Amino acid sequence: MKSDPENLPLDRLADLLSDDMAAVDALIRDRMTSQHAPRIPEVTAHLVSAGGKRMRPMLTLAAARLCGSAGPDAVKLAATVEFIHTATLLHDDVVDESGQRRGRPTANLLWDNKSSVLVGDYLFARGFQLMVETGSLRVLDILANASATIAEGEVLQLTAAQDLRTDEDMYLQIVRGKTAALFSAATEVGGVIAAAPQSHIQALFDYGDALGIAFQITDDLLDYQGDSTNTGKNIGDDFRERKLTPPVIKAVAQATDDERAFWIRTIEKGQQSDGDLEHALELMAKYKTLEATRADATGWANKAKLSLSGLPEHPIRTLLHEISDFVVARLA
Amino acid sequence: MKSDPENLPLDRLADLLSDDMAAVDALIRDRMTSQHAPRIPEVTAHLVSAGGKRMRPMLTLAAARLCGSAGPDAVKLAATVEFIHTATLLHDDVVDESGQRRGRPTANLLWDNKSSVLVGDYLFARGFQLMVETGSLRVLDILANASATIAEGEVLQLTAAQDLRTDEDMYLQIVRGKTAALFSAATEVGGVIAAAPQSHIQALFDYGDALGIAFQITDDLLDYQGDSTNTGKNIGDDFRERKLTPPVIKAVAQATDDERAFWIRTIEKGQQSDGDLEHALELMAKYKTLEATRADATGWANKAKLSLSGLPEHPIRTLLHEISDFVVARLA
Repeated sequence: MKSDPENLPLDRLADLLSDDMAAVDALIRDRMTSQHAPRIPEVTAHLVSAGGKRMRPMLTLAAARLCGSAGPDAVKLAATVEFIHTATLLHDDVVDESGQRRGRPTANLLWDNKSSVLVGDYLFARGFQLMVETGSLRVLDILANASATIAEGEVLQLTAAQDLRTDEDMYLQIVRGKTAALFSAATEVGGVIAAAPQSHIQALFDYGDALGIAFQITDDLLDYQGDSTNTGKNIGDDFRERKLTPPVIKAVAQATDDERAFWIRTIEKGQQSDGDLEHALELMAKYKTLEATRADATGWANKAKLSLSGLPEHPIRTLLHEISDFVVARLA
Repeated sequence: MKSDPENLPLDRLADLLSDDMAAVDALIRDRMTSQHAPRIPEVTAHLVSAGGKRMRPMLTLAAARLCGSAGPDAVKLAATVEFIHTATLLHDDVVDESGQRRGRPTANLLWDNKSSVLVGDYLFARGFQLMVETGSLRVLDILANASATIAEGEVLQLTAAQDLRTDEDMYLQIVRGKTAALFSAATEVGGVIAAAPQSHIQALFDYGDALGIAFQITDDLLDYQGDSTNTGKNIGDDFRERKLTPPVIKAVAQATDDERAFWIRTIEKGQQSDGDLEHALELMAKYKTLEATRADATGWANKAKLSLSGLPEHPIRTLLHEISDFVVARLA
């Protein structure tokens, strides 16, 4: 990946880690194939060529290098983290019955739900094999726990959608599961594999946790104010899917009786018609919930930056600091 | 589980292992819950209460005890094996769009595909956590490999269905993945956790592999000649789902031009109408493919018995011998 004219911090981190990231990509391409089932590389190549920022494996490599090591085991763990992430994307695509991801059709439309489920299982198992190769039981423990937390968060989201009782605490718990658990595991295992002192490992965990939460809140905000040509998402997808995210949760919490009836009809009962999304956006404007959500995201980004103070000075630490700002700057 | 009047070998094994199996059941019930997501125990309780023979965890406990040990780690691994099995059942139910399993509605009909996928992921991760607790990297390696092989076999089955080129070699490869990989891993890890000599571990692997293949061939045969009140399956489900299993593969291999046209229409093109299943059964009778399939299953059961000769004499070895016969005796 080359730096673009804006020299964004993720691009600079990618440049700094380019040798290791090339090794991660090569390892992913090698391990995602299947000797026997050609359908597997068809599905995974589609996903891998779709690119994405490879943020999670970069976080693992960055954490390991910041702690003094980025050997072959760090590369294996970075690939593992990306395999787990890709597996959850494939399973999400089945789950959400969504039509596009990163602006391209999802695998379950190009193939079918069956392939998405089973290829996801295959990638998860391949990531698991890579972890075992590092021989670190502590790493295995961290990523096994993260995998359970991710699945739990996704199930929680399933039951919390369409339920107006979903409050900000519940939202945070869901986000910790579906997004932050893999961010924090990615940074934590980087520290563990570099044999960093426990205080550094804890700081890396805290950074990943706060960064993941800032990232997801920003994503949920962009759903209501992003530009669909950049995000590959349509404005209001979450509203149509009746998901409770901060812009709506905050509006529901302050709703008048009439407004509450509107939310019950559109979110709980799913009876939506033309003009409902526009009315929802008006209510968000009335209570300034997009601004409040943006403040939440910025707060978590600041927490991420604070946790970096527990780590030694290092050019990568500076970049991780900038990445915290960048993650919420997508809002600008 | 109490012995029934026929004193079947699986029941006698269950009696012999009853204390450990009670510990396995308690561990499964404890670990399949979720602090946060009540949907998870709803789905899993449905599956667990459906029972099943718990054959795979019993094989792990039997292998460990045969090799001199069945401590807490063997119980953890037996529970792991059942978690992996249950996760694959949940994902299979999505995949096959099947309407019932063990004579009861599948989870994806009672809840939805989303829950089946995500709860399956959760159970897989919970099993993974249990394995990590044993601290045995060799066990982790075996079960990571088995998980990849299972997913690969399922994908292979997806692409091999509806394809008349699927021959007996391909069928065997699919079966090794979707069924035998977990049987052989179940027996192998039992030997590993008991610190058995390598020759015994190999014999246990060979036993599980051959038993799993015999079991699956029998299942596929029962699809065409079973009694749906016993099996909970309808005669000819595989034909309707256009799966290529030995009764059909053997008939296709010997087909006249007219018969081949019939198979192309019904299996490859999926154009099925009344009387087609009956005609398929006539062709199986013409070439005696059900008898030949039964001979295959018996052959694999005999291989399973032979591999036991590499193990020390033990009451459990005698039961494993009888279980090989029992698995194919379901045909009688």
